[in-house]
Amino acid sequence: MSAEIESLKLKLREFAEERDWDQFHSPKNFSMAMIVECAELVEHFQWLTDEQSKNLSTETLDEVSLEMADIFIYLIRLADKLDVDLVKTAKRKMILNAEKYPIEKSKGLATKYNKL
Amino acid sequence: MSAEIESLKLKLREFAEERDWDQFHSPKNFSMAMIVECAELVEHFQWLTDEQSKNLSTETLDEVSLEMADIFIYLIRLADKLDVDLVKTAKRKMILNAEKYPIEKSKGLATKYNKL
Amino acid sequence: MSAEIESLKLKLREFAEERDWDQFHSPKNFSMAMIVECAELVEHFQWLTDEQSKNLSTETLDEVSLEMADIFIYLIRLADKLDVDLVKTAKRKMILNAEKYPIEKSKGLATKYNKL
Amino acid sequence: MSAEIESLKLKLREFAEERDWDQFHSPKNFSMAMIVECAELVEHFQWLTDEQSKNLSTETLDEVSLEMADIFIYLIRLADKLDVDLVKTAKRKMILNAEKYPIEKSKGLATKYNKL
Repeated sequence: MSAEIESLKLKLREFAEERDWDQFHSPKNFSMAMIVECAELVEHFQWLTDEQSKNLSTETLDEVSLEMADIFIYLIRLADKLDVDLVKTAKRKMILNAEKYPIEKSKGLATKYNKL
Repeated sequence: MSAEIESLKLKLREFAEERDWDQFHSPKNFSMAMIVECAELVEHFQWLTDEQSKNLSTETLDEVSLEMADIFIYLIRLADKLDVDLVKTAKRKMILNAEKYPIEKSKGLATKYNKL
Repeated sequence: MSAEIESLKLKLREFAEERDWDQFHSPKNFSMAMIVECAELVEHFQWLTDEQSKNLSTETLDEVSLEMADIFIYLIRLADKLDVDLVKTAKRKMILNAEKYPIEKSKGLATKYNKL
Repeated sequence: MSAEIESLKLKLREFAEERDWDQFHSPKNFSMAMIVECAELVEHFQWLTDEQSKNLSTETLDEVSLEMADIFIYLIRLADKLDVDLVKTAKRKMILNAEKYPIEKSKGLATKYNKL
């Protein structure tokens, strides 16, 4: 686990404990809260063209980055509750993805390409 | 930026470049891919009680952790494209949250409590 | 197609045309707008217990019903764009569901039961 | 309420009762199931251009229409549980939208235009 993520994890845990919020923080509820934040991210992009989404105004970029922070925060909280090491699991997933999408078969293809 | 996240970022960038996938990787499309992964997480919890979601089987926990890895991976990729520092922005968001949810007013209240 | 849905479809089409919004209304963008509305519905329920979600206040129920209307409206708009008959397709899906979930094998089981 | 939707509602109610599934069918859980279906719709469009999303293959259009049916089915089920009249509420929402987005101020503008 990254030291930076570990530090965020402990601060977020303290934040929830101080407010007596752990009673609401089941994995089920966290999955709901996370998708809500994710949708707030989607909302910023829903009527933009691809090109526009690559050239956000300073103001929109700031709002978008705060939505991303919300998703990251919930991800760290859920990982804490489920005792999941995010960095380690991401590395494992990247190995699985490399097997699932061999370069020669995946190159430039969106059609066969459903996931990262 | 955490060194661990920085390292994942570079590996993911290479992974996409090798497959010529950057043409699909607009911020708009990433927001869609991320919410799809988030929904796969939600799907694991949709019919479970709160208690069941806290006591996952080893197999389900493994599947859940891989969905979390997918969300984390897309979050890092989007942060790379938008030049957002996830750890720094999460710290900034936590300061905003502390102002928005003062302990004395938020303690134990789900009703006034809409977000983390 | 239901006459009521047909009537809503024509009014929504007129609404978009009057505002010159069809340029934004691709199926891709509609899928994003629909999931954003769906998340606003989820947001109402995210910290509630199952029981609380069955006993909404008059005010919350009104807000929830308007979110449902938003989803319904986007569903009708998307069906219009793709020339899909919602009622007919729902009937077809119910036949497929009956085959997928035979009563004797599905009774009372949430474990094998992933979808409706 | 449309007679067609009313008929679907009764059949769906029977389908759930026969399988003893009402124990899982809280409004909270339905909101989760609905967003999962919505994400399966989004998944079809996530790497497509706007133009491609308007020109789906027969096979993809069939899959997309069945995802739309799933969303419609859950919407009807939730409306049944909460005693919401979908058609009536959609009409009410359209009046609110007309007030919120007056033609002269909304014409051709995606920037101010966040929702339908």
